[in-house]
Amino acid sequence: MAGNTFGEMFRITTFGESHGESVGVIVDGVTPGVEIDEAYIQVQMDRRKPGQSSVTTPRKESDTVYIQSGVFEGKTTGTPLFIILHNKDMRPSAYSDIQHSFRPGHADFTYLQKYGLRDHRGSGRASGRETAGRVAGGAIARKLLERRGVQVVAYTQEVGGIAGRTFDESVIEQNAVRAADPEAAVEMIQKIEHLASIGDSCGGIVECRIRGVQPGLGEPVFDKLDAELAKAMLSIGAVKGIEFGAGFAAAAMQGSEHNDEMDSEGFVTNYAGGIIGGISTGEEIVFRVAVKPTSSISLPQQTRNVDGEEVEIRTIGRHDPCICPRIVPVIEAMACIVLEDHYKRQAAMLG
Amino acid sequence: MAGNTFGEMFRITTFGESHGESVGVIVDGVTPGVEIDEAYIQVQMDRRKPGQSSVTTPRKESDTVYIQSGVFEGKTTGTPLFIILHNKDMRPSAYSDIQHSFRPGHADFTYLQKYGLRDHRGSGRASGRETAGRVAGGAIARKLLERRGVQVVAYTQEVGGIAGRTFDESVIEQNAVRAADPEAAVEMIQKIEHLASIGDSCGGIVECRIRGVQPGLGEPVFDKLDAELAKAMLSIGAVKGIEFGAGFAAAAMQGSEHNDEMDSEGFVTNYAGGIIGGISTGEEIVFRVAVKPTSSISLPQQTRNVDGEEVEIRTIGRHDPCICPRIVPVIEAMACIVLEDHYKRQAAMLG
Amino acid sequence: MAGNTFGEMFRITTFGESHGESVGVIVDGVTPGVEIDEAYIQVQMDRRKPGQSSVTTPRKESDTVYIQSGVFEGKTTGTPLFIILHNKDMRPSAYSDIQHSFRPGHADFTYLQKYGLRDHRGSGRASGRETAGRVAGGAIARKLLERRGVQVVAYTQEVGGIAGRTFDESVIEQNAVRAADPEAAVEMIQKIEHLASIGDSCGGIVECRIRGVQPGLGEPVFDKLDAELAKAMLSIGAVKGIEFGAGFAAAAMQGSEHNDEMDSEGFVTNYAGGIIGGISTGEEIVFRVAVKPTSSISLPQQTRNVDGEEVEIRTIGRHDPCICPRIVPVIEAMACIVLEDHYKRQAAMLG
Amino acid sequence: MAGNTFGEMFRITTFGESHGESVGVIVDGVTPGVEIDEAYIQVQMDRRKPGQSSVTTPRKESDTVYIQSGVFEGKTTGTPLFIILHNKDMRPSAYSDIQHSFRPGHADFTYLQKYGLRDHRGSGRASGRETAGRVAGGAIARKLLERRGVQVVAYTQEVGGIAGRTFDESVIEQNAVRAADPEAAVEMIQKIEHLASIGDSCGGIVECRIRGVQPGLGEPVFDKLDAELAKAMLSIGAVKGIEFGAGFAAAAMQGSEHNDEMDSEGFVTNYAGGIIGGISTGEEIVFRVAVKPTSSISLPQQTRNVDGEEVEIRTIGRHDPCICPRIVPVIEAMACIVLEDHYKRQAAMLG
Repeated sequence: MAGNTFGEMFRITTFGESHGESVGVIVDGVTPGVEIDEAYIQVQMDRRKPGQSSVTTPRKESDTVYIQSGVFEGKTTGTPLFIILHNKDMRPSAYSDIQHSFRPGHADFTYLQKYGLRDHRGSGRASGRETAGRVAGGAIARKLLERRGVQVVAYTQEVGGIAGRTFDESVIEQNAVRAADPEAAVEMIQKIEHLASIGDSCGGIVECRIRGVQPGLGEPVFDKLDAELAKAMLSIGAVKGIEFGAGFAAAAMQGSEHNDEMDSEGFVTNYAGGIIGGISTGEEIVFRVAVKPTSSISLPQQTRNVDGEEVEIRTIGRHDPCICPRIVPVIEAMACIVLEDHYKRQAAMLG
Repeated sequence: MAGNTFGEMFRITTFGESHGESVGVIVDGVTPGVEIDEAYIQVQMDRRKPGQSSVTTPRKESDTVYIQSGVFEGKTTGTPLFIILHNKDMRPSAYSDIQHSFRPGHADFTYLQKYGLRDHRGSGRASGRETAGRVAGGAIARKLLERRGVQVVAYTQEVGGIAGRTFDESVIEQNAVRAADPEAAVEMIQKIEHLASIGDSCGGIVECRIRGVQPGLGEPVFDKLDAELAKAMLSIGAVKGIEFGAGFAAAAMQGSEHNDEMDSEGFVTNYAGGIIGGISTGEEIVFRVAVKPTSSISLPQQTRNVDGEEVEIRTIGRHDPCICPRIVPVIEAMACIVLEDHYKRQAAMLG
Repeated sequence: MAGNTFGEMFRITTFGESHGESVGVIVDGVTPGVEIDEAYIQVQMDRRKPGQSSVTTPRKESDTVYIQSGVFEGKTTGTPLFIILHNKDMRPSAYSDIQHSFRPGHADFTYLQKYGLRDHRGSGRASGRETAGRVAGGAIARKLLERRGVQVVAYTQEVGGIAGRTFDESVIEQNAVRAADPEAAVEMIQKIEHLASIGDSCGGIVECRIRGVQPGLGEPVFDKLDAELAKAMLSIGAVKGIEFGAGFAAAAMQGSEHNDEMDSEGFVTNYAGGIIGGISTGEEIVFRVAVKPTSSISLPQQTRNVDGEEVEIRTIGRHDPCICPRIVPVIEAMACIVLEDHYKRQAAMLG
Repeated sequence: MAGNTFGEMFRITTFGESHGESVGVIVDGVTPGVEIDEAYIQVQMDRRKPGQSSVTTPRKESDTVYIQSGVFEGKTTGTPLFIILHNKDMRPSAYSDIQHSFRPGHADFTYLQKYGLRDHRGSGRASGRETAGRVAGGAIARKLLERRGVQVVAYTQEVGGIAGRTFDESVIEQNAVRAADPEAAVEMIQKIEHLASIGDSCGGIVECRIRGVQPGLGEPVFDKLDAELAKAMLSIGAVKGIEFGAGFAAAAMQGSEHNDEMDSEGFVTNYAGGIIGGISTGEEIVFRVAVKPTSSISLPQQTRNVDGEEVEIRTIGRHDPCICPRIVPVIEAMACIVLEDHYKRQAAMLG
């Protein structure tokens, strides 16, 4: 397929560009008879939208959810949900200056190379704006997972070298960076605000924890649960890596350490991160995602223009100095979609 | 789909279990008229097969390649290649002792939970044996990529905490661990042999470098080149993580550092690892894969049996103390399949 | 997948119900750099829309095409086209009377059985209204096929037992039934008007001719060109059968008659209908589609209500006494999508 | 995908050519824990194999089924079944004379046009031999459907213009043409034997009846149950058309006739053929398939050779004068695969 659809039995197809009139999603394979309303989806959209705090872009996107089909009298009908988000506050002018130059870290150059032309307005299809459709689709998956008793929680574990030291789920939504450690959150925010003040940006690490998944979920051999979560996460523009459980640290461990032993209660440890052989163990599914620094910075950078000439560029506009807080709901959304899809595939196998 | 097929336009479907009569692959979407013979594929199979050296299992698997269809008079016909590898030296008896217990680190427990029954002989379908079909299929993709001028090279970058310090591609196939640093290779081998002697195992990191890919390869939004490489790598049983370019280190970098600037020659740096926005930049594609320690160790471990009772288990049998040297060709194979598939999808878009 | 997406490399995903706010389509895999505008698509929409003539429903649907993404500065960008059609003149009230009863010939009963609930307003997702998205998507495929020199023409060959006796392509769009025989068209229209006057309806046969397809298009073995055209046509609600070339008549023929002999010019006959072994022969591709009588009639019929009680029903509302004239552009649209998809798959195989 | 895989959640991938060493199938998505053995599959293979009677080719193909993976201790494991059939009695020599000429009715010309080269030995991949893998895969689907209480029965309804006049299911396997009317069977056999004696062949019509499918099976809008059955049937080489229920006769009917009314018991008639809106009604699913005359005849025919010269050709070799009796199990197999796939997709939607 051409790359704008994700999932097998529960699937989303997104459309729309940064500065087009709308972005949105078609959600197919939705269980019929499930109560769903726009308010439920809006909660997730609001977690992703810009302008939330001092560490996110002041750019305004109301991101008001509108379900145009697939729901009748408050319940899903089994036919595709079509959810549209109309773009607001478009300022193509703000991008006219970068129309002819390739912004470092952005997909300007690669899109032009692939397609032979590009929609230069705010990265077009490559914009983070595209993830709005994912979050809307993910909210539907989240609703279906709730009925299965599955919870998906992501949070900022590290920002610009500052790592969280404690884990308190209750504070995640109470600080601007969505960290699980309130003290580290303060330091992270200071770091981000400082970098923003000098026109720079920073990256971070987001951890995701999934609870309530019983043992046995996942499709060997190629569609392993961790393999599809990896694809889902790396499909998010700013993500550069993923690791499960001990992850890269496992490279320096010995089998006698890393193997999760069992007792009559279950697993004694969870170095595997809740997935073995691509199938859930019943333990908490844990993975971490590497988020690169926001590419858009106002510091001057050297680049090329479309004519191959060297030019200096400064990305004017309103951007996030650190994308972690806003990527958290996107990561949760993609994880929800992968999980619900695998539940449906499990039902198909046994059905 | 049910998980045993990988790829869109160039696709492989594998079959077979560790101790069944055969494993193999059907390769579909192969360009017609390409000269291919079993000897070419055999070269890759021999890199994966056990018994190569002191650091791999002494288990014998001849892995003799046999093409049964799709090739006529030495050339591909455009119809599916069916490649079969007959299993040899099967010792189900060696596994009878673990028939009723779950080996730590193995998929014994998860497969039983998923399917309600399992083929306990050497992990059945979850065995590394399954990757033989992948390597055979990958060899076909490699052949097609050669005509495109694309080279895929993987090597062991780290083993049990010992990292390579230099990079000399010419030495990779000349040392037992497939490291690119001959001095580090000696230390790695010593470490592995020591762990083997005490019945333990260790993990490592394998790096993959892809050269010759022009700018513009990859399908946004969900089928990004890095997203599909991530899925491909995480679909390999022992892999627990992947990172591109600066990877997790990017989390502590600033935009002004991580952004790859351009000059009239091209990119000045390659922190992105050759992929931006899911599309190749024309720079070398670089990613690292985290490989967990081999789960099978002869040291005693605590586990459960199928009746829920706690038991001690020692995995008798012939296993690799470190899987890195043999996973290198598997990683290359999967990378080749992802690349060839994306080349064909690119041709479809433009065609 | 869940059934609302069609095509591999050129694919459409439709959404929307008869009386929802909109219907539409996402078109993925579109060649970049192609000039496209709404006017071009509108031409096809207008051929499908109701209220065109005395033999179509007077129901008003403006079907104004609106491209919301995927086109920039008049050219396709390679990203998904999102085309929306806002529903007008909705009269749910007109359907309130059939809310609790199953209309004979309609999917009311089957949808309720499948999903456990249904959107009863004008058949919901099962409405012919859904085909508006197909026609919009098909127009994009038609545009791409034009550049390949491929023409797709469908017309009404038979209505209510009256068959066309001559073929004049130039008259198809000049008569209300879209017949290629002007004299037969007059009889067909009289027949339809008579049936409409007594509250009944009739079926017909639509023939489709495709020219300009060179030899070699089609994917063996399951995705044969005729197999996918068959799926595409049978996916249209009112279609009950399809035949290629001699079709069912071949059942009574002998090999010496049906085999298309060749001479130095090419094929002497075309009983195969332009496809042999699932691959185009280079001759005109010819198939016929059986269209059932419109299910909605105002004559009283016996049926059941949701409580299982026998009731008499008369489908009030504004319906087509014969669907052939309006199904012609839908058949062309689906044929265009199948062809463009196969061209892209052919490019992938060779690419 | 490249066309050699069929099905979404229950899927088969076939391989092999007419005169290669083997043909076979990988069956993925099989429910685990189901008792299956080779004898069960062999029953279906024997119905398809040549040399059964006076009206089938005397060519010998033992078609002995061999399951190499996916079954452990007599039960399916949920991993792919790999079933191989080794070719016997290969006589490439018998085809050497047609190596350079295109046999009328065969895919010789189209394959060469598509791929640029071809395996000329007995049609290679385009041979009816490929259907052996389908029948093996279909037997697995049939086994799963048995547990659902679904029966699939096909039979020869017409041969060379002679139609069956009665329906007695019990006699189908008792006559050489697999007709449901023993008297018509005698006439059909005489007709076929006569044509065989003069070196000609004939076509026919095969009807398929499916019982035990409850209301609600099928995926709107593109993956309708009848749409996928149509694709499955047209993917069989000799099939040129399909119709459901009243089929093409519906074209001459009026809505008041064709609409299936309901009473408190259910449907009063079944002109729809058991499917409305792409979803099963609970009535018997009935469709008819048009089978063309066998292309291979020994009467002289005019054709071209690969150099474009006109030549006369007589297809020497051992062929079926009428393919209907042997296509019956292939049609049943494909129908079983479509049904089981839809059952699994239904389970996924609700699961």
